[in-house]
Amino acid sequence: MKLADYLFHLIRRQGVEHVFGIPGDFALPLYAALERSGLEPILATHEPGAGFMADAYARMRGLGVLALTYGAGGLNTVNPVAAAYAEKSPILVLSGAPEARLRASGFMIHHIVKGFDSQLRVFQEVTGAAAALTNRSTAVQEIHRVLAEVLIRKRPGYLEIPRDMVNLEIGRPGPFRPRRVRPPQPALQEAFREVLARIQQARRPVIYAGVEIERFGLRADVVTLAEKMNVPVATTLMGKAVFPEKHRNFIGTYMGRLGPLAAIQAVEDSDCVLSLGTLTTDVNTGIFTAHLDPRKVIHANSEEVCISFHHFPGVTLTDLVRFLRDCRNLRRRRFSPPRPPAARRRGRGDALRMDDLLAELDPYGDQHHTLIADVGDCLFGSVSLKTEVFLASGFYATMGFAVPAAVGAQLAEPRRRPIVLVGDGAFRMTGLELATARDHGLNPIVILANNGNFASLQCMGPPGGFYDLKAWDYVALARAIGGDGIQVHTRREFVQALRLADSAPGCFLIDAVIAPNEVSTPLRQLSAAVRHILAQNR
Amino acid sequence: MKLADYLFHLIRRQGVEHVFGIPGDFALPLYAALERSGLEPILATHEPGAGFMADAYARMRGLGVLALTYGAGGLNTVNPVAAAYAEKSPILVLSGAPEARLRASGFMIHHIVKGFDSQLRVFQEVTGAAAALTNRSTAVQEIHRVLAEVLIRKRPGYLEIPRDMVNLEIGRPGPFRPRRVRPPQPALQEAFREVLARIQQARRPVIYAGVEIERFGLRADVVTLAEKMNVPVATTLMGKAVFPEKHRNFIGTYMGRLGPLAAIQAVEDSDCVLSLGTLTTDVNTGIFTAHLDPRKVIHANSEEVCISFHHFPGVTLTDLVRFLRDCRNLRRRRFSPPRPPAARRRGRGDALRMDDLLAELDPYGDQHHTLIADVGDCLFGSVSLKTEVFLASGFYATMGFAVPAAVGAQLAEPRRRPIVLVGDGAFRMTGLELATARDHGLNPIVILANNGNFASLQCMGPPGGFYDLKAWDYVALARAIGGDGIQVHTRREFVQALRLADSAPGCFLIDAVIAPNEVSTPLRQLSAAVRHILAQNR
Repeated sequence: MKLADYLFHLIRRQGVEHVFGIPGDFALPLYAALERSGLEPILATHEPGAGFMADAYARMRGLGVLALTYGAGGLNTVNPVAAAYAEKSPILVLSGAPEARLRASGFMIHHIVKGFDSQLRVFQEVTGAAAALTNRSTAVQEIHRVLAEVLIRKRPGYLEIPRDMVNLEIGRPGPFRPRRVRPPQPALQEAFREVLARIQQARRPVIYAGVEIERFGLRADVVTLAEKMNVPVATTLMGKAVFPEKHRNFIGTYMGRLGPLAAIQAVEDSDCVLSLGTLTTDVNTGIFTAHLDPRKVIHANSEEVCISFHHFPGVTLTDLVRFLRDCRNLRRRRFSPPRPPAARRRGRGDALRMDDLLAELDPYGDQHHTLIADVGDCLFGSVSLKTEVFLASGFYATMGFAVPAAVGAQLAEPRRRPIVLVGDGAFRMTGLELATARDHGLNPIVILANNGNFASLQCMGPPGGFYDLKAWDYVALARAIGGDGIQVHTRREFVQALRLADSAPGCFLIDAVIAPNEVSTPLRQLSAAVRHILAQNR
Repeated sequence: MKLADYLFHLIRRQGVEHVFGIPGDFALPLYAALERSGLEPILATHEPGAGFMADAYARMRGLGVLALTYGAGGLNTVNPVAAAYAEKSPILVLSGAPEARLRASGFMIHHIVKGFDSQLRVFQEVTGAAAALTNRSTAVQEIHRVLAEVLIRKRPGYLEIPRDMVNLEIGRPGPFRPRRVRPPQPALQEAFREVLARIQQARRPVIYAGVEIERFGLRADVVTLAEKMNVPVATTLMGKAVFPEKHRNFIGTYMGRLGPLAAIQAVEDSDCVLSLGTLTTDVNTGIFTAHLDPRKVIHANSEEVCISFHHFPGVTLTDLVRFLRDCRNLRRRRFSPPRPPAARRRGRGDALRMDDLLAELDPYGDQHHTLIADVGDCLFGSVSLKTEVFLASGFYATMGFAVPAAVGAQLAEPRRRPIVLVGDGAFRMTGLELATARDHGLNPIVILANNGNFASLQCMGPPGGFYDLKAWDYVALARAIGGDGIQVHTRREFVQALRLADSAPGCFLIDAVIAPNEVSTPLRQLSAAVRHILAQNR
């Protein structure tokens, strides 16, 4: 068996069917191996797009794979791979590379920066595990080590495969069994006993659900747990939709002062916050406007369980959720869902506003669609939407995520049609990946919130001429790359366009024109918090 | 005076008028300072494009500046900054960052990867000098150190400026005087004496000119020197056009077996190769097909002079070129220019071929145009073109360089209209930066060598389905973003389109349709050399 054939065999065994990237001369033997493995190469228009495709695929399938060339290819994905690290998305980066036998030559090979190990060293900063397969006797071991880290810790991994190692004969490799080191049984029991006692004694327990629930495949378990306890469930912004948002126990996204009142009350008034797989980030805490008393928090993540101020290292989120799910004597509470706030109705012929646009998307948060938001107002505004599946760069907050993510998402779950919500600034970055969708028979609906500027920056920043974006003919652009589209200006036209898009067989872009300074209610609240921080710097 | 105001003051003093980038929340105070400095911010559609704009600007003006946000912005330019490192282009990267006072907090801030120093550590791998300005007492010193390194060594530098440091009052900064440490006078004299003796004794001396001639502003000096000695001048591919290619002493690009015969003979038969600022790279040496006997080579670069096998550290290219230029007793040789090979004429109504396309571009290599080639056949094919100014990623070989480089080049030298030669694969990556050109009243002519595949990869790689690119309507795309264009299929139509483009006031795209497997003569030769290397890996 050859080294690359074995690598792709392991990847297929994880349920992966597609690999994202762009070939280059150092990656040609790798691509030849990829093709004979039966995996389908998905060629992006630009490597940053390939990175976001793999990220979305990883979130839905448990592993996303990139195949890139050295230098110009690999180094073009540092941002999406860093984003995947920050948000715990299990990507495996495969990079071609110059021949291992050339490394001692001192020659300058194209695509090289300072030396042969520059790219490896860069990727060590943005991955959980990285290796250059330059040593014939350890290559298989290194593949096992890096892939296991990706699967266990959900952080990206990096494998560099020199051209003369791709077809290395490796004989019969040992078994690949990725396993986490388990804590001793008494540690588990002590943690479980204390958590259970705290929950049972609490008068107003609440579940505060974060992104790791989805990354570690615990969504169904948490639903079972919430129904058994019958307690309110809030999520973080980064963990939006890890709990089904149309579920009766769901009370909204808690992000400090910026989320709905019901979520603020339930979380901040609780005497036992069961925080499951959340990350304490500036965005999740509404730019530090959250008020959570650590003495009342049980926090479980993929590394440890923490109760008030003491830690149980090695007792994980998965351990705790499964224990509670199966626990027979958990008290069932009384819970009455909060009344939804009355929507203010405006005339449907009026100029389209961001709040209206979001309100009209509500019916699409169902089992037939995946909602994917880019950053800025598309991310913050979507807090008000109830969706079943939601993808976003909700913490790292990189622009340009959404359109390429739609490609990865629809390949990973073909029965859900992606609905992309993206601003004009972000669409300019990676919107051409719509062509990649078209190439593979996918049909995302792209809603372009076209306000002609970097609105989310402008409403928090100092005055300046550097927020404006000149107009493009986005519908013509969508048609030029094989899609279709329509421009709308009013709420009524937007609703009609959504229906048109829903019946269109291919990629469809709705160019939704919004006034330059018109932003959603959640973004207005967030901006005030950011302006407060900026004012302290004077 | 405030820290950022002082920084932009230093930058303006270097002759810089434009700064490239995209704002983000961590860069807003930096952008406000940029705007009040009088420098013009040029907003790209995507950060990789901004990187190539700054690279081209740096090559023509001596310094190019990027202003980016933290994480999602900065890490999106690792590839273009690495390219600038590899090719010695003096870029200064300015990145906004979270408040210095937040760094000890342990909070997770958006756009962060592993920690606050992740981005700095990544940039240390692709720059010559890097600093995060987190210390109030050393911030000015660090600016001086990094900027001096960029100006002296022509490698990119990186400065990270936290939001709460932008408006730091710095009092009266000390003088900024970037200076290289000079070798002792006797070392210079010993080197010069030996070089001169070797040149005088040689029977067939030749100048072999490389990229550093342009980076260190020595073009006019080398022309004077060549005319005084009256010797043949060849250049490397990376140094293409550092010597005027319509000059009578110019004999072509020497890249091993792959360049013109006159250049091979003059360089390889010479008993004294005066190699000025060249880099020994795989591309420059025609994938290692060059045969240069080191005993016959005098090599000068920005760090040292090397004669046969001994080195004079600290004696630089600039020192040597100026010495020889002013030397009174250099022997004048006899030189007769080689006869140009007879061009094979084909019917102008025939389907367009790459060789024809390149031949028709020859008249545009004049003082009114800058020729900019992307990689692949556009780079290798252009070896046969004679141009006055030529920009390309000639060593690092990153795709997507050319269209954004046209923006930087035309801002740097407004009297030269850029002519961009780019394949369809590379155009998909960064072609939308044409909109940035349009936004600033620039008018590059883009010649899209549209062969519907990654031709340069396919002709050297194994068989596979991963070379093909589906068709786009590139002319409609150019129009959607405010440009114009036309599609052509024959040599006659191409010539007519060039005339149309020349009279068009704005951005103009020529979609030149070429058969999928039709490549230039130089690329065919190069591919054979690469296939030979790949065959050794089996």
